Amino acid sequence: MDYVIQQGTLCLEGEHFQADLTIRNGMIWAIGQTVHTGSEQVIDGRGKYVCPGGIDAHTHMDLQQSPQYRACDTFYTGGIAAACGGTTTILDHMAFGPKGCSLRAPFETYKKLAADCPVDYSFHGVLQQVDEAVLQELGRLIDEGFPSFKAYTTYGYPMTEPQLMAVFPVIKAHQGLLTVHAENDGMTNYLRDHLPADAVVPAGQAVTRPNMAEASSVSMVLATARICGDAPVYIVHVSAHESLEQVRLARRLGQENIFIETCPHYLLLTEEKFRSGGPLEGIKYMMAPPLRQAVDNEALWQGLRDGSIQVVATDHCPFTIAEKQEHVADFRTCPGGVSGVEERMPLLFSEGVLNGRISLERFVQVTSANAAKVFGIYPHKGTLQPGSDADIVLIDPQRQRTFAAENLHTACGYSPYEGMTTDCVIDTVWLRGQIIARNNEFTGERGYGRLLHRYGRAPYEEIVNA
Amino acid sequence: MDYVIQQGTLCLEGEHFQADLTIRNGMIWAIGQTVHTGSEQVIDGRGKYVCPGGIDAHTHMDLQQSPQYRACDTFYTGGIAAACGGTTTILDHMAFGPKGCSLRAPFETYKKLAADCPVDYSFHGVLQQVDEAVLQELGRLIDEGFPSFKAYTTYGYPMTEPQLMAVFPVIKAHQGLLTVHAENDGMTNYLRDHLPADAVVPAGQAVTRPNMAEASSVSMVLATARICGDAPVYIVHVSAHESLEQVRLARRLGQENIFIETCPHYLLLTEEKFRSGGPLEGIKYMMAPPLRQAVDNEALWQGLRDGSIQVVATDHCPFTIAEKQEHVADFRTCPGGVSGVEERMPLLFSEGVLNGRISLERFVQVTSANAAKVFGIYPHKGTLQPGSDADIVLIDPQRQRTFAAENLHTACGYSPYEGMTTDCVIDTVWLRGQIIARNNEFTGERGYGRLLHRYGRAPYEEIVNA
Amino acid sequence: MDYVIQQGTLCLEGEHFQADLTIRNGMIWAIGQTVHTGSEQVIDGRGKYVCPGGIDAHTHMDLQQSPQYRACDTFYTGGIAAACGGTTTILDHMAFGPKGCSLRAPFETYKKLAADCPVDYSFHGVLQQVDEAVLQELGRLIDEGFPSFKAYTTYGYPMTEPQLMAVFPVIKAHQGLLTVHAENDGMTNYLRDHLPADAVVPAGQAVTRPNMAEASSVSMVLATARICGDAPVYIVHVSAHESLEQVRLARRLGQENIFIETCPHYLLLTEEKFRSGGPLEGIKYMMAPPLRQAVDNEALWQGLRDGSIQVVATDHCPFTIAEKQEHVADFRTCPGGVSGVEERMPLLFSEGVLNGRISLERFVQVTSANAAKVFGIYPHKGTLQPGSDADIVLIDPQRQRTFAAENLHTACGYSPYEGMTTDCVIDTVWLRGQIIARNNEFTGERGYGRLLHRYGRAPYEEIVNA
Amino acid sequence: MDYVIQQGTLCLEGEHFQADLTIRNGMIWAIGQTVHTGSEQVIDGRGKYVCPGGIDAHTHMDLQQSPQYRACDTFYTGGIAAACGGTTTILDHMAFGPKGCSLRAPFETYKKLAADCPVDYSFHGVLQQVDEAVLQELGRLIDEGFPSFKAYTTYGYPMTEPQLMAVFPVIKAHQGLLTVHAENDGMTNYLRDHLPADAVVPAGQAVTRPNMAEASSVSMVLATARICGDAPVYIVHVSAHESLEQVRLARRLGQENIFIETCPHYLLLTEEKFRSGGPLEGIKYMMAPPLRQAVDNEALWQGLRDGSIQVVATDHCPFTIAEKQEHVADFRTCPGGVSGVEERMPLLFSEGVLNGRISLERFVQVTSANAAKVFGIYPHKGTLQPGSDADIVLIDPQRQRTFAAENLHTACGYSPYEGMTTDCVIDTVWLRGQIIARNNEFTGERGYGRLLHRYGRAPYEEIVNA
Repeated sequence: MDYVIQQGTLCLEGEHFQADLTIRNGMIWAIGQTVHTGSEQVIDGRGKYVCPGGIDAHTHMDLQQSPQYRACDTFYTGGIAAACGGTTTILDHMAFGPKGCSLRAPFETYKKLAADCPVDYSFHGVLQQVDEAVLQELGRLIDEGFPSFKAYTTYGYPMTEPQLMAVFPVIKAHQGLLTVHAENDGMTNYLRDHLPADAVVPAGQAVTRPNMAEASSVSMVLATARICGDAPVYIVHVSAHESLEQVRLARRLGQENIFIETCPHYLLLTEEKFRSGGPLEGIKYMMAPPLRQAVDNEALWQGLRDGSIQVVATDHCPFTIAEKQEHVADFRTCPGGVSGVEERMPLLFSEGVLNGRISLERFVQVTSANAAKVFGIYPHKGTLQPGSDADIVLIDPQRQRTFAAENLHTACGYSPYEGMTTDCVIDTVWLRGQIIARNNEFTGERGYGRLLHRYGRAPYEEIVNA
Repeated sequence: MDYVIQQGTLCLEGEHFQADLTIRNGMIWAIGQTVHTGSEQVIDGRGKYVCPGGIDAHTHMDLQQSPQYRACDTFYTGGIAAACGGTTTILDHMAFGPKGCSLRAPFETYKKLAADCPVDYSFHGVLQQVDEAVLQELGRLIDEGFPSFKAYTTYGYPMTEPQLMAVFPVIKAHQGLLTVHAENDGMTNYLRDHLPADAVVPAGQAVTRPNMAEASSVSMVLATARICGDAPVYIVHVSAHESLEQVRLARRLGQENIFIETCPHYLLLTEEKFRSGGPLEGIKYMMAPPLRQAVDNEALWQGLRDGSIQVVATDHCPFTIAEKQEHVADFRTCPGGVSGVEERMPLLFSEGVLNGRISLERFVQVTSANAAKVFGIYPHKGTLQPGSDADIVLIDPQRQRTFAAENLHTACGYSPYEGMTTDCVIDTVWLRGQIIARNNEFTGERGYGRLLHRYGRAPYEEIVNA
Repeated sequence: MDYVIQQGTLCLEGEHFQADLTIRNGMIWAIGQTVHTGSEQVIDGRGKYVCPGGIDAHTHMDLQQSPQYRACDTFYTGGIAAACGGTTTILDHMAFGPKGCSLRAPFETYKKLAADCPVDYSFHGVLQQVDEAVLQELGRLIDEGFPSFKAYTTYGYPMTEPQLMAVFPVIKAHQGLLTVHAENDGMTNYLRDHLPADAVVPAGQAVTRPNMAEASSVSMVLATARICGDAPVYIVHVSAHESLEQVRLARRLGQENIFIETCPHYLLLTEEKFRSGGPLEGIKYMMAPPLRQAVDNEALWQGLRDGSIQVVATDHCPFTIAEKQEHVADFRTCPGGVSGVEERMPLLFSEGVLNGRISLERFVQVTSANAAKVFGIYPHKGTLQPGSDADIVLIDPQRQRTFAAENLHTACGYSPYEGMTTDCVIDTVWLRGQIIARNNEFTGERGYGRLLHRYGRAPYEEIVNA
Repeated sequence: MDYVIQQGTLCLEGEHFQADLTIRNGMIWAIGQTVHTGSEQVIDGRGKYVCPGGIDAHTHMDLQQSPQYRACDTFYTGGIAAACGGTTTILDHMAFGPKGCSLRAPFETYKKLAADCPVDYSFHGVLQQVDEAVLQELGRLIDEGFPSFKAYTTYGYPMTEPQLMAVFPVIKAHQGLLTVHAENDGMTNYLRDHLPADAVVPAGQAVTRPNMAEASSVSMVLATARICGDAPVYIVHVSAHESLEQVRLARRLGQENIFIETCPHYLLLTEEKFRSGGPLEGIKYMMAPPLRQAVDNEALWQGLRDGSIQVVATDHCPFTIAEKQEHVADFRTCPGGVSGVEERMPLLFSEGVLNGRISLERFVQVTSANAAKVFGIYPHKGTLQPGSDADIVLIDPQRQRTFAAENLHTACGYSPYEGMTTDCVIDTVWLRGQIIARNNEFTGERGYGRLLHRYGRAPYEEIVNA
């Protein structure tokens, strides 16, 4: 089926204007006045915004986080949530494999897990041990279309400086990108181990993972990348204003290949959530890095505005309320993560664009175009350019929606944004020319999603200047 | 005649990509895959850049600068130069009228002068005296489609603070814009009057109009605008890095409605030109503000990159070599101004984009889109949006051109950029769907240009964030 | 009589420590352990601060402000107020003389007016017209020991750019200093003339003299000084945070010889004073520049801390309550100015040092040492160096004082600080070795004050780095 | 013997002036006019500078750096060098003790080593392992008068984040101070281990310990201190401009208790020294951190000027030329360190003060007063206040000296500054009232130096504002 969206406000990376957009053969066929052929379906876009389909660069579908806990959204349920929320591509961060497993092994597992995904997808590989075999696999996997890998500086396999210094040259040589979860392992472990017995309530999370533990790790990672010839590095889920300052400092001192991601919860929620509703409520927000303070929210919005931050992704990694609340007596054993893949696009559009914090153009950049460029799927994805995949989200600013468990598609049974109302709704969502969601109803198909072959990262200038 | 430019790199304000662009009925009809109808002419755009037609927001065609001197390009010759240089719209700054003349009077004169202009045009009005009658005319003229007026803080009618404070509220109430030539009259006159007898050689120009005379006047004008409720103000031909710092400071202190223009000669030439070829050569560069130093060049490029400067225009105001050289003995009587309307687009593309100083997107913004927004002709002009006028310049980066009197269309007989080579040429230029220039040959018609009805200025956010 | 102040905290420009200080022959004789000779009087300094006597670089004693109004403190009453407030030297800004009078004429008048001054003093000359004769007198008067002159950019003789540019080279050649009252005359006049009829209540003062009128004038004055070879300039009573930013910008751009003064009322009071007590109260605060807002207070304290501001003086220029209140119906005719010469030192010590806003060292610098350096009386004044005049103020932080008309020595009958309590009192004050005030009682003599011969200004580095 | 230094320029922390200074009973007795008693010796100070005796806060006398290598200056020879160079107090950084030794053990060793030291001294303790016993000893040793301890983030006992977080609270609770040698161990080891075989020439040192390895470690250490309640931390020998930026960022983000040291060689030499004279010459400069580039020199001078850096010390740790040159084939085994205790004061005075880079006051602060405050010996040391120890250096700016092995007192046989000429000489040096050096001749006594009891660190404000 072909479509013409008539007279919507087309949102490009640097401009927006009212025009027709024609979808044909799964592609964006043309922008402008349309010659009707009779065969296409006409969609009335007046008063609505036509944006590139969302790209969520950070999800954890079906993640085996620990032996006991597996994130409760599969690629199928999570993909439906994505689709209904206006996101047409997800880039999933893999779970660690068995100790000592090869770098390639989890890819095979994930290809199976994702086989029934209803939106397009790819995977970020994950680094556990670093040895000669891994480094060789790394180069090959990048060349095969998986250019991004993740390292953690905390948790089970905290990457050390020498390990990073072994990895970066390979990443750089193959035009790949290292993504890093940066929190200083020594600091957080020390605080966690020395937490007073009466402080293991949810609010303790903020104490054990302070802003400076993140900022310090960001500083270390950036230094390592710089020493390795300004190797490209992408910091996931930046939450602390001090981390942002580290990035700005590094850039001012001449380091160029730095890419920064934040998440809606770091923009919109504060650590008050750990306390305000009591422990059973607070425990539902367990995640790492933890929620921060209003000053951090504001700094991150500022960072979005001034171009310091490139991407808003979700770190979507939900667990059920029951799984969370089991750990109300000691937050340290609680599985970490919250949902967000469905809420991201309407939240950013409402709180960002409609609330005057960011422009339409910036919305397109941070929710879609920049991720496409950084992770090697641009201009197939991330743009309304003719010739690109017809991945489109139509946003209606004349209707409202209040988030509630009942109207969300995640399997976890709650939302960190419950009760918040957006001044817009996701009206219609196309993926490669097919309508996969309409008015919060999934209309796609199980397994329609494709595994994307990804190319090397675009240069920094193109992303920041866009 | 309709056209399809096939597979050029389309340059929008925030992105560029390879696609077809269809011109029909004088409009940009569609972007993307084209359904050929058989009637259109196909242009091969491969390897070339398709940009919005240039808008030169600052020309002085046929300007009676003083009783003795009239700028030597008419709207016809200057319009041809514009067309051949890829500029499809000029916004001309009027000459002062007879002392005491009404605000409206020069508009009638200029409508006649411009009647044979081959490119689209409008006029910025000019303020001489300020009185109640003038203020009433001002509001009416803005409402009639001439929203921008110019004030000088120097020359024959130096605008004082009280005059500016009378003007700004009217400008603001009618959604107009005041453009200001800002140089402190007292400082420059003092220096001019106290110049040693042996310093009246061309290089003296730089001494009598120092950077701080400009920056100080910029500061005064911005202060006045701010006191008048942050009234919108546009500073023409900023040349000194200190002026740019004044603008940045004002913005940091919360003033928003500031728009800044610079010119190619302030980006690319230095006061060395006054000296290096001897006085007969130096006198050809007489202009105000004068050429500055390399540090100013660099600061202005930086200002273009970081968004501090919105527009690059030319202040095109040429006189013949003979007219200039008559005054070699005392530069103070020399008519001021140089050409540039033809050189601007290829210079900025070559020295800016191809030389790595600004992105393609920034080129589109500062040569076309921002001027269209600031001066009320967007999105009719200044963009490749479907529905806009088909004002397009096709730039070929595979050919070179060296500026020489023989290959330029100005009547003045020389170029301040003579001998400079650009790494691109202006290939083809459309105005409202008609090809008006091709390979440096004018193919348009006398009088084809239209007087544009202009609307209020776009808000600052749209211009800077674009 | 000789004295030993035993074991007080001696406050130097860069350190403070407990030690004895010996006064002999009117000089500071020695610092450290004292050999008692039996002839000196011992003062117990324990728990008290021994500071250089205050220098108030900006007073207007006996000022004929307009034909009808003369400031109500004479050099005698004002000098007593100074002495009781810990200030041992005043530098008085002269009134304008009759139109067309010579530059020297007012000096003769003022020598007579000041003959009975009980504290040391000198005068800043004042520039009215600028012509060749005045410029010659200017050089001579500097050479004779009056190195500082004042220009206004507003009021009866608003100095223009050309006039400043004629003056600065003379000032610079003779190692003098131009002090400037900087408010843009055109802006303030326009606002004053266009004030709505119902806005002439005291609060209107803030509207007619907005922050930007000051900042803009500061910018102009600094530009003029810079063009004249970085001629030295001192801006009196800076009140607006935007002015401070202009100074910082100028310094960042390489201008060095800038000196800045603020006053206690700009640090401690806000324009709320114009309103809060009703018009009859508000009118008592009429002054120019007017009181500003809390953000300005805070910026000025910050400027004191970071070295941006060199001097805190008072602009002491009081009128009686009756004189003020006559003009309650229209503030524009009200004589301008308030008292402060007595309150300055205890206010700065209490609100600054004891309240943790500035260090002891900074207190010494801004209340005494810097003024001495800038105005050519260092190290005779402004320091506790052995060999210097024994001008000393002993401050007791263990007693409090609440300002009230009854306990102040000004003739005006009120204080802008009435009701404020300082956490210290001025205990004892020496001038050239004589105790001239003790516990708020004047113990000096009429006419004891000397007219100081002043030398050229110290270089900026010495002042700022001290 | 008592002394009067007549009419020298006394250099205090915030002012300098010509006056007499009397020394009696080993103390500074008085400043100012002197009553001669007949018993004192008069020294003519005219034309000379009278400064507080130098305090070198970072020496390594008699250091057992490795099993094979011991620094060649003992406390006796090194103390003579200090004395002749105008330094009257040294604060020595201890060697590591045997693995597992108590924190206190090395103090006993060092008390013996230092027993014949001719200048006053104290020791910074050193942290190896961190356990409960060590933490208890730490508090006790601080209370006993050794408030500063050193941690390394590299070398044999690289301190980890958890170790720092165990140490900082104890340091803070006892008002002590942690000094840190900050270089990232993982980064430097990786680079060292992966150095190409042909790069082990001296210049390789700069490659294996890059600027970012230092800056990254500084960032980590500051973060750890901040998490521990803004615990006080002192970074030794900062050499990279990026480290300085980390410190400025931390301060801007609200961290206060940071103190920074640099060394003369980082201010005056560049890594060019590793290459310019060939390997046998280059190897003599082996040290860590390595010499940097001109941009770092300049940034450090700027940091001295603007108050970012508090202390200039030497890291004096010389080895003989033979010991160095044995390792010319592979710099990685070479003992690290150079001399400097004798050169520091004349170098800083000549290159800093006389060359116009820092003021006299700043010289006093960074060579003496600030170290005294930071390390708990102020105002006994570090100032010319009456009552302080008469530790004084008389500097003569009318004589010159060229550094050469023959005229230096270190046992190592060479100087990194060989051939450099200072525009001043150390004329006379007093320690507690005794002349211990005169015109480069040691006149003191073996063992005259005292072990200083040190008190807690002064607050940051006093140091920076002084």
